[in-house]
Parts: sequence; structure tokens; C-alpha cells
Amino acid sequence: MSPQITILGAGAMGSAFATPATRAGLAVSLWGTHLDTGIVAQLRDGRPHPRTGEALPAGVRVFDHADLGQALADSSLVACAIASDGVRDVMASAATALAAAAAATGATPGHPRAVLIMSKGFAVSPSGRVELLTDTVARTLADHGVESPVVAVGGPCKANEVAAGTPTAAVFAATDPALAGQLAAEIASDDYGIEAGGDPAGVEVAAALKNVFAIALGICDGLAARLGRPRHDLRAAVFAEAVAEIATVVEMCGGRAGTAHGLAGVGDLEVTGLSGRNRAYGELIGSGLAPTAAFDRMAADGLTVEGHAAAPLAVRLIGERGTAGAKSRVPLLDLLAHGLELDTFGGDVEWALARATLPRHRA
Amino acid sequence: MSPQITILGAGAMGSAFATPATRAGLAVSLWGTHLDTGIVAQLRDGRPHPRTGEALPAGVRVFDHADLGQALADSSLVACAIASDGVRDVMASAATALAAAAAATGATPGHPRAVLIMSKGFAVSPSGRVELLTDTVARTLADHGVESPVVAVGGPCKANEVAAGTPTAAVFAATDPALAGQLAAEIASDDYGIEAGGDPAGVEVAAALKNVFAIALGICDGLAARLGRPRHDLRAAVFAEAVAEIATVVEMCGGRAGTAHGLAGVGDLEVTGLSGRNRAYGELIGSGLAPTAAFDRMAADGLTVEGHAAAPLAVRLIGERGTAGAKSRVPLLDLLAHGLELDTFGGDVEWALARATLPRHRA
Repeated sequence: MSPQITILGAGAMGSAFATPATRAGLAVSLWGTHLDTGIVAQLRDGRPHPRTGEALPAGVRVFDHADLGQALADSSLVACAIASDGVRDVMASAATALAAAAAATGATPGHPRAVLIMSKGFAVSPSGRVELLTDTVARTLADHGVESPVVAVGGPCKANEVAAGTPTAAVFAATDPALAGQLAAEIASDDYGIEAGGDPAGVEVAAALKNVFAIALGICDGLAARLGRPRHDLRAAVFAEAVAEIATVVEMCGGRAGTAHGLAGVGDLEVTGLSGRNRAYGELIGSGLAPTAAFDRMAADGLTVEGHAAAPLAVRLIGERGTAGAKSRVPLLDLLAHGLELDTFGGDVEWALARATLPRHRA
Repeated sequence: MSPQITILGAGAMGSAFATPATRAGLAVSLWGTHLDTGIVAQLRDGRPHPRTGEALPAGVRVFDHADLGQALADSSLVACAIASDGVRDVMASAATALAAAAAATGATPGHPRAVLIMSKGFAVSPSGRVELLTDTVARTLADHGVESPVVAVGGPCKANEVAAGTPTAAVFAATDPALAGQLAAEIASDDYGIEAGGDPAGVEVAAALKNVFAIALGICDGLAARLGRPRHDLRAAVFAEAVAEIATVVEMCGGRAGTAHGLAGVGDLEVTGLSGRNRAYGELIGSGLAPTAAFDRMAADGLTVEGHAAAPLAVRLIGERGTAGAKSRVPLLDLLAHGLELDTFGGDVEWALARATLPRHRA
């Protein structure tokens, strides 16, 4: 029997991951939350996913919200692809089901082998501190007696391209790099390359922050549309500053700057700046809308903007983990968080970005 | 009297630099090569530069090819913005003129204070080794008894945006970082930020290589057009691999990997991947043309593609400076150089790029 993976969350990325998982020879179970009921029905009928445009590969079993225990039965791997604000509740339910199954079958507490974290963003712990989703999941599992290691999944992966099986590079990172390496070797294929690494915190921070900085890249695109001429130099300066600030925050969180300079940082920022909702939200701001008006316009189209919520959490995170004055080391992030909060960038967003981004004669 | 700078080369970047130099309070002399005769006439008439679309700022003095000595007289700074294949000859003439003027006036051999290198690309030394343009210029000056230090100028600077005075970030790097810092402080303005640094070799390597890697980014854009769907994941993986390979080659040449991760590497690659001739050349290849046919199409439009010539020189450089097997550390660069040389990427450029770029389970 093939080893089995259960993907929790039938959104774009969860459903998309069924493609490389199937290609790697895994038996795939896909479980939808109560928000995914309509999608589950469509996928069961063999119709395309509404967000990726792709149907599931043959053989994927699709489970409805009520059947979480059944969906998890016999899986040696679990992938968490829930929207970030639902991660804690869903993983608590999953951990309860896993613990019950282990008690019934006598499986070891190390079952499943690993939980892959595909959800991205910052969370708030019960004690009110900002935390990484890998930490949220690890604690939630441990609270229920499930001791499986977590693996951060990052890198430049657009769900529709992953679902279509076109070339994609992902990063799997775990505190135990040997585990990440084993999983990478098992799951990688010609079209889904996996870099294994040992810096899950860095991958998590980079993945959450890239959504914030993609708003700034979108602003530059919107400025070009409004001003009638490109602002490529500014966009490139924003890009380089974003990479530098991702590296700074990664290090504040105990990760490695090199993670920001590779696929999980530079690569993911590049793909997020090419397309997606955060970039589109920024483009509306750059073209002249106030942030709130832009946010409402996106919401009216049914589009949530992850970077909007992540920006103030990122600033809180820096306040909690950085040294005094740490905010001065992330001027672009600080500008974005304040501008979104105050609903204005002070009249001229082009020069606000320039002031936050252009070098200040650092020798 | 204001300090004076002489810009050698009236192409797009040389002419554009007159804008921030004037804004910094420098008196600017712009000298055109024999290839720039038509441009010089247009600029003298107050008409826009044919490539940037901008007229020169008021007060810039424009010199024709015959008046090199006059153009250099009294300048404390010189900027070299000649096309890379003309740098040695032009700088030999300039050094002769500078030495003659110094002999006539009794100026110290340290005059001018610095020579800013805006030309980009690899050169071949008289002994047949590939070298950086900063080394070419320094040796050419020294051969004529001119001992001025050279300063590498890099970062994401599109000539038309620099000429228009829209926000731009540049990098000035010199072996003596204090000199770079002084020049940065003197020349930087609100719209032209300058990061000063001490790694001129890194800046030179990054600036030359980004043209090669922008071809690969363009190929991804062309693939999307041909295949009818984006290849954003592949483009982002190519981008991240390009940054990693730039860092590798920078270190082979005695520079610092951090240079590749900042404005001179990541930033310049971003802007070069957004627009420009190297990206456009790659787009033609991705859309289905053989490299030679794409090159001819560009040439028919009067467009030279710097990355095309730089690719084989980069591979030669690695052979000369890297350790045995160094080419295996730059698989994307190696693919590009070979594909352009052989006039084919082996039938399927998408999967050739994927094989060179997707991670190979590096733990």
C-alpha cells in the first residue's frame, strides 16, 4: 500500500498540493473545512477547483468537514493548508482525532511522521504574543499528546501552477534537517523541486512578510499606471530593501539571513510581486485609492489580502523579539504598517516609498 | 566655482547621469564618442536624448569627439559611461589627455580625485584573461601615469528614470570605502540615493551577470506568452538561482556575497528583468525563436544585447578564477552560455531551465 498523506484544507494551495503528492506516489486524502463545502462538492464531481482552474488528479479521495477522523485514518503525513486564522482550531480538532486513533490502534505518539505547514501568516498565541504558525501547530499538537515534528513549506509556489504540474521550486525546512531531506527526496519530482533546509523559522517569517512587501511592489506598479511612466528603479529599490528587511526580521526570530536570500525569501517575493492579491491591492493604492477603499474594492471581489493583516502583526512581532530601536531597521515595513493603519501614506506614496527605501549613505 | 565632473560617453546612461550630477551642484561636462556625434548635436540643440527621451539639465556643457582634452580640463571627477568594448581605447585617450594636462599645470598624479565606472560588462585583458572593467580602467590609467582611484557604480538604475529624476538607488563602491562614502555624500540627493560600499569587484560582477540572467527571466516571460499561461513559479525559481549564482561568481572574483544580496545584485536583477533589451531578447527565445534568430531580430531594431556577449565571457572568467568543477556551481549560467552558443536549448527551453534551476534536494 502506498504511504498516505492527508491534506487539511481544500483551498487553492491545499488542493494544488494533491498534484505533486500524487505524482510522488502518495495516496492523497483531501479534507475541506466547513468553508470548503462547495469546493468539496465540485472536486468530487471531477470539476476544476474554482481558484486553480484544475481538477484533482485521479485517485484523490475528498472528505467533507464532518469526516475529519476518517480523512486522517492511516495517514503517515499530514499537510496543514488552512487559512491562517483557522489553523489553531482546525489543528486542535485534527490533533484530537489523531490522538484518539493512536489510542485505539496503539500507534506511537510520533505518528504521523510529520505535519507539513503550508498555511502562511502570523498568529497570536493564547498569551497574546505574535508567533509563527509552525509554533502554533507544534504547541497545539503537543497539547493533545501528538508529538509529530512540523515542517515549514515555503518557496515560490503559485497554487494554480502547482496544480497544473508546471515547474515549481519549494522549500521544506525542519528543525531536524535530515527529516526535511528525507521528505524532500520522497516528494520531489521533475516538476516539483524541493530544497531541504533546517531553518523553519526563517521560512515562516519570509513567507508571511512577502505578502506585506508585495503590497509595496504593487504600489510601484500602480504609480506607473497613474503617472504614465514606469517606476522600475523604485520598484527594484523596494524589492532589494524588502529582501534586506526580511533577512533582518528572520534573524530577530532566530532564523538565518541566508533563508531570506534564497527561494523562500527572494524567490517567494518575486512570484508574489508578479501576481496575486497583495500585489493587486498595492496597485490600487498606487493608482490613487486610499488603503481602506482599495481593501473594500478587493473585498467586493471576494478577495482577502493577507498582507494587510500581516503588516501590523509583523510590527508587533518586531516589538516583542527585536532589541530597542529594532523598528528603525525595517523602515519599509514600518511605513507600510503605519500607512495601512492610518489609511494614508501622507499625500505622496511615491516619495514616502523613496524615503523608506533609498540608501542613506551607509558606508 | 563648483566642482566639475566630466562624463565620457553620451549614450543613455552617461547622458542620464547629468541629471543627478547637476542636482548635486556639480558643473557637468558631457563628452560624446565618435559614435555619439548625432546625439551630441541633438543635445546641444536642447532636444531630448533619443534613448532616454529627456533633454539635458540647463548648464551642461556638451563636447564633441574632437574636444576630449577640453572636456576633461579642470574636472575633479570623471565618469566612464562608454560601451564596454570601447572602454580601453577611450580611457587610454582620456588618460593621455589627463597626463598632458597634469604635466602642463603641475597637478598631482592623484588628479582627478576619482573615476566613476558606469560602463558594465566583462573585458579581455591584453594577456587574454577575462577581467572586470574597474581593473581595465585602473590599469589603463596607471599605464599613462594617472593614479586616480576607480569607483564602481551599480544598482538598479534605468537611464530614462535617472534622466527624469524619478527615485533611484545607486551603489558606489571603491577599494577605499571612505572615498565611496565621501562621493556618495556629495552626489546623493532625494531622488538619487547612493549606498556606499567597499566591494567594487562584487558590484562589477553583479552588474555584468545580471544582463545574462535577465535573458533567462525574459525566456520565462516568452514561455508564458507561447504557452498561454504564466510561468511565474519558474521565473521566481530562476530569479533566486540567478542571485545565488551571482553570489558564487562574486566570491570567485574576490568580492562579497552580500553584494549580490543587495541593491547591486537583487535590485539590479529586478530592474533588468522588468524591462530592457536582455529581457526582450530572452522573451523572443521563450516565444519560440532560436537564439540567433532572436539576436538578429533585436539587431534589426538597432538593439545590442549585452548579456549575449557577457555569457561566454562569464564562463571563461569562472574557468580562470574558479576552482576545478566551478562550473557545476553555476548550472543556470552554464546552460545559458551553452544554449546561446549552440543556438538551441535542446528542444524544450522550459524544462532546460527547470533542470538548471529547481533544487536538487540540497540538505
